[in-house]
Amino acid sequence: MKKFMDENFLLSTKAAKELFSACKDEPIFDWHCHLSPKEIYENKKPNDITELWLLGDHYKWRAMRSFGISEDYITGDKSHYEKFKAWAALMPHLIGNPLYHWTHLELQRYFEIYEPLNEKTCDDIWERANNKIKQGGFTPRELIERSNVFCVCTTDDSADSLEYHIKIKKDKSFKTKILPAFRPDKALAIEAYTFLPWVLELNNTSGKTVKDYSSLIEILRERIEFFNSQGCKASDHGLTYVPFKRATANELNKIVKKAISGEKLETEEIEKYKTELLIFLGGEYAKRDWGMEIHIGAMRNNNTAMFNKIGADTGYDSVGDDLMAHNLSRLLDSLEVDGRLPKVVLFTLNPRDNYVLGSMLGNFQGTTAHSKIQFGSAWWFNDHYDGMREQMKALMSLGVFSKFIGMVTDSRSFLSYPRHEYFRRILCEILGDLVDEGKYPADMDFLSQVVKDISFNNARAYFGI
Amino acid sequence: MKKFMDENFLLSTKAAKELFSACKDEPIFDWHCHLSPKEIYENKKPNDITELWLLGDHYKWRAMRSFGISEDYITGDKSHYEKFKAWAALMPHLIGNPLYHWTHLELQRYFEIYEPLNEKTCDDIWERANNKIKQGGFTPRELIERSNVFCVCTTDDSADSLEYHIKIKKDKSFKTKILPAFRPDKALAIEAYTFLPWVLELNNTSGKTVKDYSSLIEILRERIEFFNSQGCKASDHGLTYVPFKRATANELNKIVKKAISGEKLETEEIEKYKTELLIFLGGEYAKRDWGMEIHIGAMRNNNTAMFNKIGADTGYDSVGDDLMAHNLSRLLDSLEVDGRLPKVVLFTLNPRDNYVLGSMLGNFQGTTAHSKIQFGSAWWFNDHYDGMREQMKALMSLGVFSKFIGMVTDSRSFLSYPRHEYFRRILCEILGDLVDEGKYPADMDFLSQVVKDISFNNARAYFGI
Amino acid sequence: MKKFMDENFLLSTKAAKELFSACKDEPIFDWHCHLSPKEIYENKKPNDITELWLLGDHYKWRAMRSFGISEDYITGDKSHYEKFKAWAALMPHLIGNPLYHWTHLELQRYFEIYEPLNEKTCDDIWERANNKIKQGGFTPRELIERSNVFCVCTTDDSADSLEYHIKIKKDKSFKTKILPAFRPDKALAIEAYTFLPWVLELNNTSGKTVKDYSSLIEILRERIEFFNSQGCKASDHGLTYVPFKRATANELNKIVKKAISGEKLETEEIEKYKTELLIFLGGEYAKRDWGMEIHIGAMRNNNTAMFNKIGADTGYDSVGDDLMAHNLSRLLDSLEVDGRLPKVVLFTLNPRDNYVLGSMLGNFQGTTAHSKIQFGSAWWFNDHYDGMREQMKALMSLGVFSKFIGMVTDSRSFLSYPRHEYFRRILCEILGDLVDEGKYPADMDFLSQVVKDISFNNARAYFGI
Repeated sequence: MKKFMDENFLLSTKAAKELFSACKDEPIFDWHCHLSPKEIYENKKPNDITELWLLGDHYKWRAMRSFGISEDYITGDKSHYEKFKAWAALMPHLIGNPLYHWTHLELQRYFEIYEPLNEKTCDDIWERANNKIKQGGFTPRELIERSNVFCVCTTDDSADSLEYHIKIKKDKSFKTKILPAFRPDKALAIEAYTFLPWVLELNNTSGKTVKDYSSLIEILRERIEFFNSQGCKASDHGLTYVPFKRATANELNKIVKKAISGEKLETEEIEKYKTELLIFLGGEYAKRDWGMEIHIGAMRNNNTAMFNKIGADTGYDSVGDDLMAHNLSRLLDSLEVDGRLPKVVLFTLNPRDNYVLGSMLGNFQGTTAHSKIQFGSAWWFNDHYDGMREQMKALMSLGVFSKFIGMVTDSRSFLSYPRHEYFRRILCEILGDLVDEGKYPADMDFLSQVVKDISFNNARAYFGI
Repeated sequence: MKKFMDENFLLSTKAAKELFSACKDEPIFDWHCHLSPKEIYENKKPNDITELWLLGDHYKWRAMRSFGISEDYITGDKSHYEKFKAWAALMPHLIGNPLYHWTHLELQRYFEIYEPLNEKTCDDIWERANNKIKQGGFTPRELIERSNVFCVCTTDDSADSLEYHIKIKKDKSFKTKILPAFRPDKALAIEAYTFLPWVLELNNTSGKTVKDYSSLIEILRERIEFFNSQGCKASDHGLTYVPFKRATANELNKIVKKAISGEKLETEEIEKYKTELLIFLGGEYAKRDWGMEIHIGAMRNNNTAMFNKIGADTGYDSVGDDLMAHNLSRLLDSLEVDGRLPKVVLFTLNPRDNYVLGSMLGNFQGTTAHSKIQFGSAWWFNDHYDGMREQMKALMSLGVFSKFIGMVTDSRSFLSYPRHEYFRRILCEILGDLVDEGKYPADMDFLSQVVKDISFNNARAYFGI
Repeated sequence: MKKFMDENFLLSTKAAKELFSACKDEPIFDWHCHLSPKEIYENKKPNDITELWLLGDHYKWRAMRSFGISEDYITGDKSHYEKFKAWAALMPHLIGNPLYHWTHLELQRYFEIYEPLNEKTCDDIWERANNKIKQGGFTPRELIERSNVFCVCTTDDSADSLEYHIKIKKDKSFKTKILPAFRPDKALAIEAYTFLPWVLELNNTSGKTVKDYSSLIEILRERIEFFNSQGCKASDHGLTYVPFKRATANELNKIVKKAISGEKLETEEIEKYKTELLIFLGGEYAKRDWGMEIHIGAMRNNNTAMFNKIGADTGYDSVGDDLMAHNLSRLLDSLEVDGRLPKVVLFTLNPRDNYVLGSMLGNFQGTTAHSKIQFGSAWWFNDHYDGMREQMKALMSLGVFSKFIGMVTDSRSFLSYPRHEYFRRILCEILGDLVDEGKYPADMDFLSQVVKDISFNNARAYFGI
């Protein structure tokens, strides 16, 4: 019987342990996350562990609601201590949940606390963690540096001024690169309540006016160029489903005018707009050698009552099941056939589609990068032990595993970096098993390089940073 | 090498064995099954093992047909001995099939027979089993009591008079609670050949007349109230797919009138009727704090020729693949937004949807129960070793595992209770592995409580019995 | 730690090793492959290993492209040595990919080379392999005989004259049966650019003229009869999705006339034609007791640019995700209800559908064969360690495993036969685990027969050869 989460956590073979030694100290390149540039810039010292852990993390909120905990302790008025206590009492019930491992990795790595969190240890851990926080080292930049992060790509709206990115850059003492990533979801969501406010914001940021599709894409092109000038190397798209319906410039101009005038669009119009805008954007990314991340399948804001109360990104999202193979194939092909296909990273929220994506990659590879089309690591509801194993095993079976660009935190929390350690342990365990079972030669030098590459070097080379 | 199905069957770690000792003697709460209240009331003594095993079990029929056995030996005229012999000869071929393990668990637990069943042992087992049966202990009530069953919820049509439930209740010597569960599938199936006969039956039972939607739901409300007065705590719905299309009261009245007059309905009318009736029913269940079970994805009666010969529920059903995420989200949200969402247990027949359901839960949790929205255990074609593991691992990764309400037999046979033992062994093996591999602390007191809760207490608390 | 790919490769238990000894020398019945009858007839001696391995294998091409290798080294003008070197340099990167194991099994079994292939061993292996080839034993017929192949079913267009099959039969010294299999994909693809050329070819081969649906099916019936006279026992269908829309003879005649006249068909017309032609063909197969293989879910030629450059079957296909359960059920039922359902082998390219297919089988079994409706082994993108395990475990859980007709190479290469060894090792490992873990009795005689049957006898009995 192994000890609970000790230094050999998740590593059961000699080979796995050797591989983990090789990669554990590699830097982190967090090329997709939801950290706030404003918070990085302001670099505020937190007051207690509840601020770090519970005030902004909708993964934890969701788990608390699933236990039947009242909203008072989640997004409500209860004290920081009471919220922490509710979390601590829930903790032992999260058997097999990634939150269980993440919580304890964070306690170990940032607080040197090795006891399991539960009702009994709650008060002691509350006190010790808060003392640690008081001693310092827990501001956003300190946490990023302590976590050995080489580079962070945040997620920034296409209308964003990048004000905080520009400010952060001026602090030369902060070694980690903080780069923007271009996320035009609001530009694509022409049917959403957010579209007109976003158009106004874009007009404001750009000093120009969106009148139709042509003017819209001209402004977006300028935004892309601006992001590029700020070191941006990646775009990011969240698609509930993959649209595909081609349209003419004329049709598109009419659609955008209609939307701007507040008229409701037909489904076909929405599809056409999204398709063509995606193709336009893909081409622009290709010109600048950006990577295009596509996150497919999140159904957001499922609970209308709670959305009306506390808004988006509060823990009411889930896994969609729209079909994607045909449209995704046509979308990528439409770019490829014109020589405009950028590097693309495909993520699926529904693990039933691991083989659709994993095999789609191979249709559109090219010579501009090792594995130009990538299968993004297990995302959100799949970001756990089983989910990561399934994604990696699918990629192994279907593609060239050694060129996988690996893990991202995809997190809003500055304490999430141990998720990279978690990923690396799982990676090394999988490869260690192959060696141990005689399925791959015990060429530990080569495999050590592979785990270092997947942990860090591949992503750096892929995004060219 | 472990011995075949001995006391440590499916248990490979010390921790798993310890956990199984903790929960193995917990009572069974079989909150969803297809046992016949009439058979429980009549409590007939069976004549031989073929009566108990083969005359009514379409799981076994299906396996026999898959081997190429003639229908004579399945639903035909061959003797009980000949049918048993055909089953025995097939048995060794069912390698890795749950029927193999169920059969041998039943032989061990009810007959003290520990040899594998096959052509060679057939005659000996036929004789020994039938001798046991002659010695007594094999009537429905005896089997239920021998199996340590605390409570059974049967599945009863919404038009049912509950005659046998009322009769069973009068036998005070029988300790197990036998409760009805409300299954309005025929009420929902407005497009089916069963609808008009069902309306006549409902008119008859209720002494009222269905004239339109308004009168229909009034009668159904009375039926629910009647079921409630008989101790019902759960409803059950079998949905091939999840409908969602809202409609007005006026539209619904027209639709029901049209159906009653024998006119064929449009697809949209069927969708509207089903959607609104589900929402109405959900609200009624919520008022009475019932749990609403939704079984999604069975395609029934696929073989027309055999349906015409031997009818429904004869082994010609299979796993459907309709998409469900959007409609299910909208259906649950429509209830939630009006404060009418009952406790819901979501089952999927297609394991590709484990993540759709497992993540859907989290959108609609509440404080009226621990894990108010539940992910139902692996059902029917998933009710086996791998299927149960996959369902439990998905639930672990996505929710609060300790509050899982666990196993049901979903069976028509009084010998199916060892399926709970099978489930508990798998449950303990999964948790034992987590401890053994250092993924969860060796807090055996807490985990022992968890396995007892999942085996029994959680379901009892959830349904409030 | 086990040695790399030694005699116990993939076998970890005593039981698994014992079972593998029992079945490893069984002959191979390769009842579905893409070997060329012309190449078998011509029986040319290859010049080097690149000819055998790289000139025609789009699986390898795809892997090379995924690594970022230029097309020059794949389908382009680089020398055979340069192509081999590119492949060798890629090899160690294919960690966990079936190509890694296939490559090394082929090196071991046909070349007695036991070192891992990589950049360092490239030149040495190039030389040793080519020397072996020079010594002889590498013509198509020699490779087939060295691989202990009892029978091969090739894949032949319905308009094919079977010229080479007829010629091969005349060589009485060649012991392996080479039989045609009837593949009417071009007949079904009425909407494709290939349809009219195919009609012309059919007219030519048959000496008759397709004028409408009636004349088309008459000619196809003659083709089937001709294939039957040449020993054909199987048909094969590749369906991107499963169509189902019934039509009258009159409608069908109009549809075919429209297609022949070069008019574009409506989607509904295409569906009707495909549905009725499949039903017609199924009935014809049933009359002759053929097995009907249905391969569902391949999306072909996704990359238009490369299709225009190098054509079909060049590595630009991937896994589709169309829904199939309802249509497949209706299609099979339409045959069954008229007593015209042949033996059917269902393959899915998307492993998310393992349970849809695995449970569909049970709806339509019959007494004309053990497991008349079969679940085809893990295919193409699933033809690897995990994919084969998943398919076999699904079949075990849902059907009668002992009657599984097992593995096919589905290959265009004469060196692919070790895939049968690979399959048998995995098969024996799965059964060995069941015994080792006490989940199945250690009845090694029975299980030895089972692995021999699945390796060879079942398929032979099923196809009646």
